[in-house]
Amino acid sequence: MRTSIATVSISGTLTEKLNAAARAGFDGVEIFENDLLASPLTPEQIKDRAADLGLAIYLYQPMRDIEGLPADAFAQSLRRAEHKFRVMRRLGAETVLVCSSVSPQAVDDDALAADQLRQLADLASEYEIRVAYEALAWGRHVNTYDHAWRIVESVDHPSLGVCLDSFHILARGSDSKGIESIPGEKIFFLQLADAPLMTMDVLQWSRHYRCFPGQGEFDLAAFVQSTVRAGYQGPLSLEVFNDIFRQADSGRTAADAMRSLVALQEAAGITDPPAPVEPTAVAFVELVTPDTERVSTMLGALGFTRAGKHTSKPVDLWEQGGARILVNTAPATGRGSLSLAAVGLESPDPAAASKRAESMEAPVLPRRSSGRDILIDAVAAPDGTELFFCATDRPNLPNWLNDFQQVPHCSGGGGCVVGVDHVALTQPWHQYDEAILFYRSVIGLQPHDSVDVRDPYGLRRSRAVSTVDGGVRIALSIAPAPTDSGTASQHIALATDDIISASRRLRDTGRLLPVPDNYYDDLAARFEFGPGELETYRELGILYDRDESGQFRHCYTSTIGNVFFELVQRDEGYRGFGEQSAHIRLTAQLAR
Amino acid sequence: MRTSIATVSISGTLTEKLNAAARAGFDGVEIFENDLLASPLTPEQIKDRAADLGLAIYLYQPMRDIEGLPADAFAQSLRRAEHKFRVMRRLGAETVLVCSSVSPQAVDDDALAADQLRQLADLASEYEIRVAYEALAWGRHVNTYDHAWRIVESVDHPSLGVCLDSFHILARGSDSKGIESIPGEKIFFLQLADAPLMTMDVLQWSRHYRCFPGQGEFDLAAFVQSTVRAGYQGPLSLEVFNDIFRQADSGRTAADAMRSLVALQEAAGITDPPAPVEPTAVAFVELVTPDTERVSTMLGALGFTRAGKHTSKPVDLWEQGGARILVNTAPATGRGSLSLAAVGLESPDPAAASKRAESMEAPVLPRRSSGRDILIDAVAAPDGTELFFCATDRPNLPNWLNDFQQVPHCSGGGGCVVGVDHVALTQPWHQYDEAILFYRSVIGLQPHDSVDVRDPYGLRRSRAVSTVDGGVRIALSIAPAPTDSGTASQHIALATDDIISASRRLRDTGRLLPVPDNYYDDLAARFEFGPGELETYRELGILYDRDESGQFRHCYTSTIGNVFFELVQRDEGYRGFGEQSAHIRLTAQLAR
Repeated sequence: MRTSIATVSISGTLTEKLNAAARAGFDGVEIFENDLLASPLTPEQIKDRAADLGLAIYLYQPMRDIEGLPADAFAQSLRRAEHKFRVMRRLGAETVLVCSSVSPQAVDDDALAADQLRQLADLASEYEIRVAYEALAWGRHVNTYDHAWRIVESVDHPSLGVCLDSFHILARGSDSKGIESIPGEKIFFLQLADAPLMTMDVLQWSRHYRCFPGQGEFDLAAFVQSTVRAGYQGPLSLEVFNDIFRQADSGRTAADAMRSLVALQEAAGITDPPAPVEPTAVAFVELVTPDTERVSTMLGALGFTRAGKHTSKPVDLWEQGGARILVNTAPATGRGSLSLAAVGLESPDPAAASKRAESMEAPVLPRRSSGRDILIDAVAAPDGTELFFCATDRPNLPNWLNDFQQVPHCSGGGGCVVGVDHVALTQPWHQYDEAILFYRSVIGLQPHDSVDVRDPYGLRRSRAVSTVDGGVRIALSIAPAPTDSGTASQHIALATDDIISASRRLRDTGRLLPVPDNYYDDLAARFEFGPGELETYRELGILYDRDESGQFRHCYTSTIGNVFFELVQRDEGYRGFGEQSAHIRLTAQLAR
Repeated sequence: MRTSIATVSISGTLTEKLNAAARAGFDGVEIFENDLLASPLTPEQIKDRAADLGLAIYLYQPMRDIEGLPADAFAQSLRRAEHKFRVMRRLGAETVLVCSSVSPQAVDDDALAADQLRQLADLASEYEIRVAYEALAWGRHVNTYDHAWRIVESVDHPSLGVCLDSFHILARGSDSKGIESIPGEKIFFLQLADAPLMTMDVLQWSRHYRCFPGQGEFDLAAFVQSTVRAGYQGPLSLEVFNDIFRQADSGRTAADAMRSLVALQEAAGITDPPAPVEPTAVAFVELVTPDTERVSTMLGALGFTRAGKHTSKPVDLWEQGGARILVNTAPATGRGSLSLAAVGLESPDPAAASKRAESMEAPVLPRRSSGRDILIDAVAAPDGTELFFCATDRPNLPNWLNDFQQVPHCSGGGGCVVGVDHVALTQPWHQYDEAILFYRSVIGLQPHDSVDVRDPYGLRRSRAVSTVDGGVRIALSIAPAPTDSGTASQHIALATDDIISASRRLRDTGRLLPVPDNYYDDLAARFEFGPGELETYRELGILYDRDESGQFRHCYTSTIGNVFFELVQRDEGYRGFGEQSAHIRLTAQLAR
């Protein structure tokens, strides 16, 4: 279906908004009146600009407080409407959004509303304009879509139809099934917005917390299906009032928006893109650093062995159990201190994973092909982390490990790391919902619940995405405000089957993050432990959590550059990340 | 009364929080358990630290899910409680907060709750600890203060009393009058928080949107009066969960918190500080700049005349009608480009105004006394703007104008500015509520309603404070996110009695901010105008608003450094600032 976005959904001037929508590949836009009013471009110039960019102007919006009014107020409204119809002709917009009245003057009289909407439609038809009437969820008398439709049906005017807005309908808990009984040609427009489920004033909820489909909790696929079944053939248009999107980069937001529509059409069965290919494990994590000394010492303290070096690039391969860490010292990476740059995901079918990413409008990276390097499919996550789709040691598929030649080393240095439990990536301020949608739609991971984590300097939001079996887990978090530095710390959580030995080794090398005694006094109050158990945790800086499925024990290293490590011993079934004690870790890190 | 603040109300580590509370002059603190758990200090060290800072530890909090539980769960809770009582002894805290149960296991049985609270109180008394039982607004069965009190009364134990929290009581709309029937000695603790009135889930409202007394909409004065009438003699303690305070500078927040308690005690009739002295007009606005050329040209274009120079400092006095602008080129100001540094407020009694400021813990500035300069009382607003209390040309009072000597000039250059309509100050990100409280309590101005203003890069919040008659108006606004530059533009709105001539003069000198044509097409749709009127506004970039009391017409200059000017013709009775078209101006300024 054709795609559209309301200019109110993205930041900037009207010109910037049009550019961003075009670059993201939208077919058209809704022009929000305030964006037009503030633009130095005339309506004719806006029309030309949109045409040059290949954008249709599907809708002009909104027109308010028209129907159900006393005669003099209605006369005023009609006068105002005629002015707007003239602007729309100049703009080349053929459909106008009319919201149900919220005016205290409005009366509860469907016949009056119908009569006035008929007059409006008569006037509109003189300008060859169609009126799309929408029930606002907080409309004074008309606030459900079926009520709006009853009035439109009774008017039976070719220039009058309804506009359906998923927020207004789903926020009230209305059943979207009823849409199917509206003739498709009378659905003049379809506006889409998702939202987190919140108990709050519906107007405030709508104005500040809408988000793109798949970023909230509404069932938009069913909503779109009902509309399509009704016979609607117009564009799918995003109308999202969101305080974050209003201030985020317009290009990013528009790309995120487009991805949401692509994923929605798949979910609604309208399109059939290549299926997601769920990764099975973390093949490697790549760190970049201008100097290897500190990270080598740390990896040694963690029990890793330098097992290989890249045949053509300054990249070392460190191994332990099933965990592989690449240390890249290429100056081209241009980062000042140790950073996490890439994650290799073990994929059952790397080529298909890459096709999936491409179909979801993800930035597929140029395949690496310098020298005799193996080609690896990769995609950039919203925060810039590169995700490689790997087939390690599998017959008939390119093996990235072949790029590395073994270096002499004594294998099995007594480490007890068995793999990567999870990777934790702090997201840029504005890119939290975008990241969740990315990992879900592009990579095929499932989002967990969002949790608030107390940081000494504000609340962080944290949300994990993972495969169902936990083979791949990525914990995303967002700081309470933009950081001055721009880069926040990332971490690699290594799975171990012997947290006691692992943390003792860390402590003995002076790289263990100390945990305050008070924490252990609290643990003693919360849980009962076997003899000596708590004392061991206290001695070794091990944090502890337990749920009905099992235990979660973990400890942290000190931080190098922007990266630190966690050691995790997770009982099968425990799904969390020890969030309850995250504030202990965050505070302890400040003291370093 | 003694003052206290919960550590959860301010940002940082526990050490930083204690330091901030002490510096702001609090008598004591509530220690929030998570702050203690994350601290590397032992309870004994925290006790000593607080003592060294002169801070009492009035409360340890919170203890959850104790009462109304099945026997095994209660046994667990009691075990947990005993651990905490031991920590409290080490900490020197004698009162613990126990919140009413939210556990799904909790049963609706007052007799059971009473029995278990009695057992808890028995245990507490062994540790010489008092239990303050509080009804959470979302408590599972006990969620009103009178219910909590009925249970406490029935237990009748010397170690068991109630904790009253203004949020939990007022958010539910309970009448605080009933507090007066509780014996004062059974009110073990009083927690104070204000909040904006919001329609939303009460737990989310409480956890994220509480604010200091006077910054929200609850009647905290009546609440405190009732508690004092009941005979409560403990401290007034602030417990404010607020997402902004969590990330703001702890020192600022603590000072803001203390001011709120000082103002609250005055409002409740507990103290009787010097009365506020309402200013009557803006005596001057002071700009600082490294070079005077551009600002001199602009002031000339606005019709100002350079009428005087300071006798000992590099400060010029520009005059027109009743408006005076000082241009300060002293290098000590250290600002890179033109900025608004100070506002002179005409005060009926400058010395009393200064005393008021001092009593409200405002930073009174050292009186200027270099050379033969007149002494002027002044205070620093939260954003650093200096506010001078002036008595211009009044007998028996120091006249700041005497510091200036006339320079030759032709007076009355045909300008039509008659005074200062308002001054608009963009506030640093975290200091919006703080600023409102400051102008209200220290300066005696009345806050208007807060409005959201659309900026192309996010929503701004804007709120004016003014005298009742509009003699002094200050418009405060806050950007949607911290700005990179740190400094946002300020502006001076000059009152004129002839907006047409004033804006024509600006246009002729090339200093008028152009307004898009589309805006005037919209005006034509919204209002009816006399012949030629709208065309004049269009020609001269005049923005227009009208309410039931009259018209508001205004235009803007281009921006110099961080400052621009507005020309305003305001009909008497119009109370606003043309907020409806603020987004037009904000967008037009981007194009410059």
